[in-house]
Amino acid sequence: MNKIDVCLSPDLMHLYPVTDKIVVVADILRATSCMTAGIAHGVAGIRPFADLEKCRAMKHCGYFIAGERNGQKVDGFDLGNSPYDYKQQHLIGKNIAVTTTNGTLAIEKSKNAKMVVIGAFLNKQALADFLMEKNMDTLILCAGWKGKFNLEDTLFAGAMVEALQGRYHPSCDAPIAARTLYLEAKKDLSAYLSDSSHVQRLKRLNIEKDITYCLQENRLDCVPVLKDGEIVKLN
Amino acid sequence: MNKIDVCLSPDLMHLYPVTDKIVVVADILRATSCMTAGIAHGVAGIRPFADLEKCRAMKHCGYFIAGERNGQKVDGFDLGNSPYDYKQQHLIGKNIAVTTTNGTLAIEKSKNAKMVVIGAFLNKQALADFLMEKNMDTLILCAGWKGKFNLEDTLFAGAMVEALQGRYHPSCDAPIAARTLYLEAKKDLSAYLSDSSHVQRLKRLNIEKDITYCLQENRLDCVPVLKDGEIVKLN
Repeated sequence: MNKIDVCLSPDLMHLYPVTDKIVVVADILRATSCMTAGIAHGVAGIRPFADLEKCRAMKHCGYFIAGERNGQKVDGFDLGNSPYDYKQQHLIGKNIAVTTTNGTLAIEKSKNAKMVVIGAFLNKQALADFLMEKNMDTLILCAGWKGKFNLEDTLFAGAMVEALQGRYHPSCDAPIAARTLYLEAKKDLSAYLSDSSHVQRLKRLNIEKDITYCLQENRLDCVPVLKDGEIVKLN
Repeated sequence: MNKIDVCLSPDLMHLYPVTDKIVVVADILRATSCMTAGIAHGVAGIRPFADLEKCRAMKHCGYFIAGERNGQKVDGFDLGNSPYDYKQQHLIGKNIAVTTTNGTLAIEKSKNAKMVVIGAFLNKQALADFLMEKNMDTLILCAGWKGKFNLEDTLFAGAMVEALQGRYHPSCDAPIAARTLYLEAKKDLSAYLSDSSHVQRLKRLNIEKDITYCLQENRLDCVPVLKDGEIVKLN
C-alpha cells in the first residue's frame, strides 16, 4: 500500500526526501485556497515567488501581481490574498504572479518532488480521487506560519489522510495526529479554529468572509498542479 | 496570564526564543521518563551528552554510563534506556552520564533557557504544581524522533497544557492541538499510541513493560532540573 506522510512545517522539509513522491502543498488561509479558486475560475496560470521583488517584476511580463505579507495586501499589487480577488471576471485566461508569507515558500521547498499539487478544503475530494488514481507515495506539506505549526493546514492534512484511509497507509506519527485532530474538529471547523492564532490574526483584518469560504469542503472540482514553475489546471 | 507554548521538534527550536522562559523537555519513550525515575529513586545526578564518545569517557570520572541508539543499549555501557535500569539499588547517591537518540539532543538545544526541567507523564502533576508556583512563560519541547514529530511527546505536552488550563494561556496553535490530542487519547493512552511509529519500533525490541511504566501519570512526586549541566532533584 502507498504511504502518506505529513510535514507539519516547511522548516522540517529537510527530513522528507520527496524526489519520488507527490507533494500536496497546503496553505489553507489563504494562499492555496486562492490558487485553487483562481484555477477553477479559469485563471490560465499562477506563478509563485518566495521573493516579493521578483514577483513585482512580473508586472512587466504581462502578469497580474498578487502579494501578501503578514496577512495584508502589498502596496502597488493588483490582488491581495483573498479568494474573491482571484475570481474576478477579467482574470479568466490571464496569468498571475503571486508571493505570500508562507504558501509560496512552501511551494519553493517542494521543488524536488516528482510532482507538486495544490491542496485546499475546497478541492479535497478532487485531490483524493487524483491521488487514488496516481497511486504514489504522497507527502502533505503544511505551510504553517513563519515556520511554526498551524492548525488549519494540519486539519486539512488530516482530512486528506481520512479521505485516503484504507488506500494509503500513514508512514509516521504526524498523519495519525492530523487525522485525529480533523475527526475531532470536522463537526464545526470554523468553531474549532476560532481560537487559532492565524484565525485571530485574520479576524483583526476583518476577513471573516474569506475564512468561511476557505473552510468549505469539496466546493471545487479542480486539481492545480505545478508545471514548469507555474500552477495550472491538471489536463 | 503567563503563556505556554509547545515546540513539536528540536529542529524547530530556532523559532522559539527561550532566554526568559522555563523549558520542559519531554522524551516520553524513554529518556526523560528514565531521568525522572532515576532522580526520584535517589540517583544524585544525571549528566546528558548529545555525543556518544563524550558520554563514554565519563566512565573514567566515576560516572555510570547509560546509552541508547535507535532504541537499543550501546555496547559496553552500564545502563540502557529502560526506567528499570535507573531504579537499581546500587545507583542511589551515584552519578550517571547519559546519551540517547533524541532526548539528550533536546536538552542540548534548550541550554539558553532561563531554566530547564525534565518532564514525563510520571511527574506530570508535580511539574504542573511547580510551574504554577514559578509563574513564568513556559515552552514544552518535544524531543520527537530524529527531528520528526512524534505522538507520545506531543500527548504529554497536551497533558501539561490541560493541567495548566486557566493558569497559562496557549501562545500559539501547537498547544491547542496538543491538548485536543491528549483529551482524545487520555481514556487509553496505550491503545491510542499502539499505532504510533515509535511504539511499533519499541515493541519490536520487546520492551512493552517500559512503555506501560512510562505512560503512568503522576506516579512520581519529583521535579528534575538542569543545574550546571547536570540533572538533579529540585531543592
